[in-house]
Amino acid sequence: MTCRANLENDRIIQEWKGEFFPNISYIRYEGPTSRNPLAFKWYNAEEEILGKKMKDWLRFSVAFWHTFRGDGTDIFGSPTKRWPWDDGTDSLTTAFNRMRANFEFLQKLGVSFWCFHDRDIAPEGKTLKETNANLDAVVALAKRLQEGTNINPLWGTAQLFKHQRYMHGAATSPYVNIFAYGAAQVKKAMEVTHELGGQNFVFWGGREGYQTLLNTDMKKELENMAQFLKLASMYKKKLGFQGTLLLEPKPQEPTKHQYDWDVATTMGFLEKHGLSDQFKLNIECNHATLAGHSCTHELEMARIHGMFGSFDANTGDAQTGWDTDQFLVDIAEATLIMLTVIKNGGISPGGFNFDAKLRRESVDVEDLFIAHIAGMDTMARGLRNAARIVQDGALQSLVDRRYSSFDSPLGKAIKDGSIGFEELEQAALNSEDQVPPSGKQELAEMIFYSFVQ
Amino acid sequence: MTCRANLENDRIIQEWKGEFFPNISYIRYEGPTSRNPLAFKWYNAEEEILGKKMKDWLRFSVAFWHTFRGDGTDIFGSPTKRWPWDDGTDSLTTAFNRMRANFEFLQKLGVSFWCFHDRDIAPEGKTLKETNANLDAVVALAKRLQEGTNINPLWGTAQLFKHQRYMHGAATSPYVNIFAYGAAQVKKAMEVTHELGGQNFVFWGGREGYQTLLNTDMKKELENMAQFLKLASMYKKKLGFQGTLLLEPKPQEPTKHQYDWDVATTMGFLEKHGLSDQFKLNIECNHATLAGHSCTHELEMARIHGMFGSFDANTGDAQTGWDTDQFLVDIAEATLIMLTVIKNGGISPGGFNFDAKLRRESVDVEDLFIAHIAGMDTMARGLRNAARIVQDGALQSLVDRRYSSFDSPLGKAIKDGSIGFEELEQAALNSEDQVPPSGKQELAEMIFYSFVQ
Amino acid sequence: MTCRANLENDRIIQEWKGEFFPNISYIRYEGPTSRNPLAFKWYNAEEEILGKKMKDWLRFSVAFWHTFRGDGTDIFGSPTKRWPWDDGTDSLTTAFNRMRANFEFLQKLGVSFWCFHDRDIAPEGKTLKETNANLDAVVALAKRLQEGTNINPLWGTAQLFKHQRYMHGAATSPYVNIFAYGAAQVKKAMEVTHELGGQNFVFWGGREGYQTLLNTDMKKELENMAQFLKLASMYKKKLGFQGTLLLEPKPQEPTKHQYDWDVATTMGFLEKHGLSDQFKLNIECNHATLAGHSCTHELEMARIHGMFGSFDANTGDAQTGWDTDQFLVDIAEATLIMLTVIKNGGISPGGFNFDAKLRRESVDVEDLFIAHIAGMDTMARGLRNAARIVQDGALQSLVDRRYSSFDSPLGKAIKDGSIGFEELEQAALNSEDQVPPSGKQELAEMIFYSFVQ
Amino acid sequence: MTCRANLENDRIIQEWKGEFFPNISYIRYEGPTSRNPLAFKWYNAEEEILGKKMKDWLRFSVAFWHTFRGDGTDIFGSPTKRWPWDDGTDSLTTAFNRMRANFEFLQKLGVSFWCFHDRDIAPEGKTLKETNANLDAVVALAKRLQEGTNINPLWGTAQLFKHQRYMHGAATSPYVNIFAYGAAQVKKAMEVTHELGGQNFVFWGGREGYQTLLNTDMKKELENMAQFLKLASMYKKKLGFQGTLLLEPKPQEPTKHQYDWDVATTMGFLEKHGLSDQFKLNIECNHATLAGHSCTHELEMARIHGMFGSFDANTGDAQTGWDTDQFLVDIAEATLIMLTVIKNGGISPGGFNFDAKLRRESVDVEDLFIAHIAGMDTMARGLRNAARIVQDGALQSLVDRRYSSFDSPLGKAIKDGSIGFEELEQAALNSEDQVPPSGKQELAEMIFYSFVQ
Repeated sequence: MTCRANLENDRIIQEWKGEFFPNISYIRYEGPTSRNPLAFKWYNAEEEILGKKMKDWLRFSVAFWHTFRGDGTDIFGSPTKRWPWDDGTDSLTTAFNRMRANFEFLQKLGVSFWCFHDRDIAPEGKTLKETNANLDAVVALAKRLQEGTNINPLWGTAQLFKHQRYMHGAATSPYVNIFAYGAAQVKKAMEVTHELGGQNFVFWGGREGYQTLLNTDMKKELENMAQFLKLASMYKKKLGFQGTLLLEPKPQEPTKHQYDWDVATTMGFLEKHGLSDQFKLNIECNHATLAGHSCTHELEMARIHGMFGSFDANTGDAQTGWDTDQFLVDIAEATLIMLTVIKNGGISPGGFNFDAKLRRESVDVEDLFIAHIAGMDTMARGLRNAARIVQDGALQSLVDRRYSSFDSPLGKAIKDGSIGFEELEQAALNSEDQVPPSGKQELAEMIFYSFVQ
Repeated sequence: MTCRANLENDRIIQEWKGEFFPNISYIRYEGPTSRNPLAFKWYNAEEEILGKKMKDWLRFSVAFWHTFRGDGTDIFGSPTKRWPWDDGTDSLTTAFNRMRANFEFLQKLGVSFWCFHDRDIAPEGKTLKETNANLDAVVALAKRLQEGTNINPLWGTAQLFKHQRYMHGAATSPYVNIFAYGAAQVKKAMEVTHELGGQNFVFWGGREGYQTLLNTDMKKELENMAQFLKLASMYKKKLGFQGTLLLEPKPQEPTKHQYDWDVATTMGFLEKHGLSDQFKLNIECNHATLAGHSCTHELEMARIHGMFGSFDANTGDAQTGWDTDQFLVDIAEATLIMLTVIKNGGISPGGFNFDAKLRRESVDVEDLFIAHIAGMDTMARGLRNAARIVQDGALQSLVDRRYSSFDSPLGKAIKDGSIGFEELEQAALNSEDQVPPSGKQELAEMIFYSFVQ
Repeated sequence: MTCRANLENDRIIQEWKGEFFPNISYIRYEGPTSRNPLAFKWYNAEEEILGKKMKDWLRFSVAFWHTFRGDGTDIFGSPTKRWPWDDGTDSLTTAFNRMRANFEFLQKLGVSFWCFHDRDIAPEGKTLKETNANLDAVVALAKRLQEGTNINPLWGTAQLFKHQRYMHGAATSPYVNIFAYGAAQVKKAMEVTHELGGQNFVFWGGREGYQTLLNTDMKKELENMAQFLKLASMYKKKLGFQGTLLLEPKPQEPTKHQYDWDVATTMGFLEKHGLSDQFKLNIECNHATLAGHSCTHELEMARIHGMFGSFDANTGDAQTGWDTDQFLVDIAEATLIMLTVIKNGGISPGGFNFDAKLRRESVDVEDLFIAHIAGMDTMARGLRNAARIVQDGALQSLVDRRYSSFDSPLGKAIKDGSIGFEELEQAALNSEDQVPPSGKQELAEMIFYSFVQ
Repeated sequence: MTCRANLENDRIIQEWKGEFFPNISYIRYEGPTSRNPLAFKWYNAEEEILGKKMKDWLRFSVAFWHTFRGDGTDIFGSPTKRWPWDDGTDSLTTAFNRMRANFEFLQKLGVSFWCFHDRDIAPEGKTLKETNANLDAVVALAKRLQEGTNINPLWGTAQLFKHQRYMHGAATSPYVNIFAYGAAQVKKAMEVTHELGGQNFVFWGGREGYQTLLNTDMKKELENMAQFLKLASMYKKKLGFQGTLLLEPKPQEPTKHQYDWDVATTMGFLEKHGLSDQFKLNIECNHATLAGHSCTHELEMARIHGMFGSFDANTGDAQTGWDTDQFLVDIAEATLIMLTVIKNGGISPGGFNFDAKLRRESVDVEDLFIAHIAGMDTMARGLRNAARIVQDGALQSLVDRRYSSFDSPLGKAIKDGSIGFEELEQAALNSEDQVPPSGKQELAEMIFYSFVQ
């Protein structure tokens, strides 16, 4: 951190008289009958559900990039949003302002966590050294803003996909200098995450993949990616960072194929390279559906393997083939998600990061609050519904009954490996051919939806 | 095998005077200028390409189920085809006739391999014992028909998806008696495959998956599936079967989610359960595209992990979301496939099984020949094109050049694990920030397509 | 109708002593707190919502084919269901039994409408004449069963896709005799629908499309389809049938491309051929999503053009690319659907036909009731939610405000065509360049979901 | 055009000494055996195919926006390309340089047409008046550069999607001032297209659609869109512009739903509003596949309705759900496209516009040439193949034979409307029930692919 940045930093904090959201006050819980768009109707932070406070089940986090850097640009359009904290320049001063807006937003919303990429919060300099100094300056400000609050990062991450240098990937770039640059960037991002008390560190392989196999050596790229992650894990120990390292699966976009395609692919890769105990997964609903899975599938696949680390709360549009990163408002979906979270005993030190952005056409400051409130209320409704399903027990009973024949002696012998195909053939030859009972899917759906409200 | 079946079997063979395809003679190679639909224009079995005969690169196989059992039924329609070898009954006599038609077809087409499900070739009896006897009878006939030919099964498999008992799966059924029945069926199917000199044995998990997570214990099902495969592998050794065990990935259909979703998922599952060295993969193009991958992606993913076992030659319709199992006629696709096959040094003891069916509206006996000839010629064109690409070398050079920086001291140090993030950071801080060169995708495509003809 | 069939018919009715659903009694409304799976919790037939009884808004109908002919067959599997009214033969006796089961089911469920294909309810004979006689016999029974009830067909239709003769289409078959046969079949199906007091007649072009353009003359096929529909409309008038003629869009499956692809395509086709005032549309949710649209999109597109005729209540699986025809249980979706229905002032003489089938694994008679009850309750919840949204008015206000600038003089001049590009250019040059306000999507979603319960 | 711009313009032209592509000379035809990436192997402009020169069949056009404005930005990434004609500013000087680069490129490539959006070629000013002046200045330069060449625009269009003001649409914006602004912009764009001798004018409704129906009045939006197009058509006549007005269908992206979804939807809309004879269609392959159609389907659907106006030559990635705008290199696809073009008798005054962009990772100036050469050669191969298919006649014969039964008296009576359902029923009752013959799809594919080379 340079001296100049330090001074600037002090000046900004001292001068912070006004607010970026002067017309928005602290968001309160007003209950389900409230029609106030700037109030919670279902999320009541301190209320206990199944023995744990809602805020501890949900551990909400605001995504710095979408909320403070999102300007409405899309592939066919220029920016639509002009936020009061953003003069459109990439200066340190603007970076400081954005960070102040972040903290005001978090506090007014009553959220304790935020997530960031290194390059979202601080501008790139002319050299890596200068870039790192910029990052240090903003981090110092964030640290001071955190003081006396219960706020810190849910996770940090390194942005290894936006800059031209990463156009062929970072860990999987064909160019060794890019691999090195990526490593340097992750090292630094991990350090500042640690510095800020971040609870996890995420790897999203935005360009770790390929555009065409015609110019790609996939074997080399996958081996390099494994080596990169090994070194990251080693450095984490050296640094003394206690947070969880998380991989975030996504099937494609921006590349045609990303190596961390989905939960199963990513777990298989980690297993193959002996990294299963050093990483968990950060799972995003929109990435799940792009991969052809339901969101619940991805969460359950991770949960039953002990790999469910954290959650990127968003949703895609069911009819579009790209990442729309919308705020999740579907209460049935939220109920399914929270069922998995409850079965997992919560996901701490992970949490619910709103990796979601306002629609391009939503340009009011107020919209940022409305979107987050709706997102938080939706997950709170899901939690309430899921808790009632769990307490009721009928759905779990239906499942348990289906598998009860495996508690028989034959079932146990299969499980403990004491019998083989010959004994099983004898069992089949000796027993009457029975048709299995109804799967009861419609009944299960009826039970489930009777709790969705 | 019962005595009665044996006698019946003898009678059928003795009585086989006429032919099922009296108007079709042996299919010959006539070269690219031929306009005869019943001749090969590109597949010249004995011609050498890159030091190996075409027939040895391609090891074509006819799929018994599509070609001799396919009747044109679809989900909205009744049968459209009335084949001369099929009286529509499920009798042993008809089964014998179908098998004779199979051998006549193979010989006229000049194909040395066939693939089968146990239940395709022989009817189900009232008990498992009776069913096994039926199977033995048909296998005995097939064995006699094989005598003096160079024909045998590329692979056999057990049909664990059609009968009502398997509606919830076989290895992953919630019911232990179904697991046992499935095991008995695989055991027997493996035995008859061995008996017939089959070179591989395939597992396609047609209903190993779920329709809804609401009624499913995915953890139990996956563990049961792993145990089932372990027992299969153990029994293979006991039986002395030398063929390869192959899993065949498919993402969905008939179930909403199948556990062997794609190559990466299936490899991860095998790795997790210590089964990687006991199984390889049988990869189908139409399954690849249903999973959101190009066919080449799946083949390459398997190849670089040493898991490419065999190939189900077919294609889907690019605009439909279900398995259409069409004959592959696209020569660019065939060229990509054969590039992978050449890089793999061939796929023996695997081969190219035409897991493809006539369109419902194609009802002439002649159409069966035309479809297979087109499929074989397409792969032969692909082989010729791929060989020229390999011999030319320009495409491989383009790839090699891209990764050459990893041959530097820094690249080697990364590979051998002698440096970590700190050294890489130093390297990044000390070197100039360089933008990587063009990926040359358009040039790679230009080179590739210049060889497609 | 032959004499013999008449006698048989009488005998069946006289002998009908027992019930097909002896353990299921009439389904009653028990309110939202009930946990009884065989009771309605939200559908209260006589309750008034927005001035109309629920049963009059919803006009539920049971689909004969799914409920009484569905046997669980799928493309990879044999039947799984053995219903008490079905001995698996295609005899007239079985047809009579199925029809009796239909009426018992309708009455126990409290549903007044049923829908049928000609070939679902009566078996095909050796000649068209015999087939028509079979149909007459079953229709006569149905008519007698209807007597004294308030039950009649919501719609009838001709099954022009299952038989081999229709493998290339019916109205779009390349073969003139098939066109004639299809016409004869529609004529007869329209007559029996009329005879039974059916309120609409549906055309689903199951094979009116193509599998490949390589063998297709699309122009001829589209012209033939138009001519076929013209003749149908003319015959309707001649017959004196007052019901609505409905086309049912579906994009594909079984064919690769079906000509009635979606609502817009079908409306365009009708417009092109001067048929817009003679047909409306029967819209199915699962077909909507297969076409890449939300269900609401299709309903709204039809509604604003005055073409929303009737509704096939079902849903697809969001992750599968084929028609799963599931019972719709999502309450948010049901709320959107009912919003359109309310805006349309109801859809009578159309209704809500459950074109939905039990999952293959659901094999209990009870499951048929559970599925329909869940489906009816879901639409009833949707109706209750939608009514409250309409009564609240906030959502509609948000929309109206957005378009209010078109009430200005400039807006009116555009609408009435009194100004052109030159005047508009002047307006643009003379006015300040203003950025439009926020689209308020997140607020709209918040409002909508606050009513979903 | 302001005086200042004029002077600047002169200066630029006078000063243009050097070249932007100094290392690339004129691209020549060298024939199929050439390995020179900067030569044509199949496109031989003056060679006659089926009585017309290749250049007259193909009428290639370069898309100004992709080739001279494309900087490699994607939704997750910053620019990757630094072209010598672009200093990254939005100044008039840079605009002049880009236009000079355009003409150098066209001439070296041997292409006679270019396409442009108004805002691609000239920067937006502070007011519409200033913006128009900027446009005039660049158009004046372009006109001077055209002098003495055979180059002019294939089409011009107005960019109504990028600026913030159009975030809710232009013709379908809820705000009347935006409608007016859009009209003004189209008026001016049409004028400058006319000024430059442009042969068509295109409307791509990039934001004419919706993001959510919850905040949308679709009826009003569709009516406004119709009115907008009517006014455009009226102004065209007033202006004396003889070119064709073209709508360009696309299903979605950037919006969730675009009103010009596909060919059928767009034709239906035109028909509904009486605009069918005033517009034709500009069809893009990548848009076709995003809509769930094959490219050929869209072309054929337009062709048989006399609506095939022009072609945007590109392709998508078969596995991605967004518009990738890649150069089309698949020769089978090109052959299908050219079959339709030949059946249409060519598409003049339309042409083949390369609405395709270099991959983000392709950053060499040379790549622009390679991509266009590959694209031109691919279409040329397609033309050569298609011509041979047409000359051979076997494929057309197969189709004609299928429909020949409609030449019978019965077929003719159907066509001329002289018989109805009653006569058709009699025909069906009196004739034997015949199963139609094989569809011969595999044979058709075999024939087709035998010509693909």
